[in-house]
Amino acid sequence: MRIHKICILGAGTLGSRVALQFAISGFQVSVYDISQKALDLGHKTMEKILRQLVKAGQLHESQITEIFSRIQFTLDPFEAVEDADFINESVTEEVDIKKKVWKQFGEIAPEKTWFTTNTSYLLPSMFAEESGRPSKFCAFHFHDVFYSRVVDIMPHPGTDPAMILMLEDLGKKLNQVPVLVKKENPGYIFNTMLMALIGAAGKLLTREVGSIEDIDRSWMVNFHMPMGPFGILDSIGLDTAWHVTHKMPDAASQAFAALLKTYLDQGKLGEKSGEGFYTYPNPEYRKENFCQ
Amino acid sequence: MRIHKICILGAGTLGSRVALQFAISGFQVSVYDISQKALDLGHKTMEKILRQLVKAGQLHESQITEIFSRIQFTLDPFEAVEDADFINESVTEEVDIKKKVWKQFGEIAPEKTWFTTNTSYLLPSMFAEESGRPSKFCAFHFHDVFYSRVVDIMPHPGTDPAMILMLEDLGKKLNQVPVLVKKENPGYIFNTMLMALIGAAGKLLTREVGSIEDIDRSWMVNFHMPMGPFGILDSIGLDTAWHVTHKMPDAASQAFAALLKTYLDQGKLGEKSGEGFYTYPNPEYRKENFCQ
Repeated sequence: MRIHKICILGAGTLGSRVALQFAISGFQVSVYDISQKALDLGHKTMEKILRQLVKAGQLHESQITEIFSRIQFTLDPFEAVEDADFINESVTEEVDIKKKVWKQFGEIAPEKTWFTTNTSYLLPSMFAEESGRPSKFCAFHFHDVFYSRVVDIMPHPGTDPAMILMLEDLGKKLNQVPVLVKKENPGYIFNTMLMALIGAAGKLLTREVGSIEDIDRSWMVNFHMPMGPFGILDSIGLDTAWHVTHKMPDAASQAFAALLKTYLDQGKLGEKSGEGFYTYPNPEYRKENFCQ
Repeated sequence: MRIHKICILGAGTLGSRVALQFAISGFQVSVYDISQKALDLGHKTMEKILRQLVKAGQLHESQITEIFSRIQFTLDPFEAVEDADFINESVTEEVDIKKKVWKQFGEIAPEKTWFTTNTSYLLPSMFAEESGRPSKFCAFHFHDVFYSRVVDIMPHPGTDPAMILMLEDLGKKLNQVPVLVKKENPGYIFNTMLMALIGAAGKLLTREVGSIEDIDRSWMVNFHMPMGPFGILDSIGLDTAWHVTHKMPDAASQAFAALLKTYLDQGKLGEKSGEGFYTYPNPEYRKENFCQ
């Protein structure tokens, strides 16, 4: 099970970061996307992260050229999977699109290739059959790769157990902390807990038990954390949060989804749009006197 | 509304800490308990904390005598409330006991005395009438005073709004971060969110989605926190967690309460008993390689 050549499907935010970490860790990487613009943006994302890593003393400037020499960007699916030992897919989070991609790559990938999906909320069993090799199919899910270094390994019932061991080993080689999700569970482990925390915070807000600031303050001060649930929501994006929340059937989630919608309708998506629960780039919760 | 003389009811873990913080902040404090043993233990708790604060450079050795000179320990309720401007009650977390205490002190306290309860999960409205002065009654709830410096201010519908302002000011004088709980809510704000997190972790465990270690690791690595939900449970005490969880009607809470019960039946109460989800004093999660 020697893993040397990696194929990353999708050059978005997460795909680029995963590709970069593979290259930093010495793997050969091809990054595939259907759009040249996406590939160019992916390249820029990587350059930005590398500069940050150099600044933080985690890499030397001189390594950058070498790292990029291991990364190939391509619009050609055949070139992308040529001799690939391993695929990690980070395409758009829609079932039909992912199914189509897995059907396509299942047909053209070499027989040896292991298949992994980096889906955030979908399940590997949704795509395993489509790929044509369910026993070599597993979720291998990264968080943000560089700050939050968990990689979730979530098999579906048909995944070959040997693949799990291989992924644990591979996760460590990528400077990640592998976590085994023993059964399929939407949102893996961390996101399940995070959504519970955010759901509780949302309920406290919609029931008018506490203000946004006091709810965040409670969490930040007691746990000595740099942000509370609403600061976290601003960084996740209120659109993403709404996407998850509005599908939950319980009354509390529905009330919170309705509140999130009022923010979205005003173009307040969180940090990325300049405003969410807080105003950026200098939100209240980052000010020194917020927790005093 | 000058607050000078404080009466603390109950010399347990939290009562002692609150009393000590009042004395450190320059207030005169009387600590009342019905047992001399409890008062002696409270004194020891304070000495221990003061030594830690000196060690941490937050206090000078020479201040200790002065701080203790402001604290009076007493078994006499009349002496305890003599000239008291303010009561904070931390007696046993049982409705009938607290009611009895508030009836007693409502009768003997000076007219000027403000009444506050430090209850963890009960509500101020349960005792406000009993105390005989509902408008001067509010919850004023500390966490651990020295590490987690949130103080919750939770009025009941009859609390005088002026009291809330007074408590915000007082909280700041005590080096705490005041948080307003606008409506009565069992567990205030932080504990509501913490219980949601712990509930989600418990469900992941009882549904066998993840191991104790992997669930904790997910939280610790992604949030750069020193412990995860099961480490937190060990420090809270599995008996306390069971006490809260087994009263919740939903199936997930019931399943987790049943699991907690198997630990309790083996005498595993968490850190205080030497074993809970982890073994102490050197639990796995504090080892260097746990998050690698």
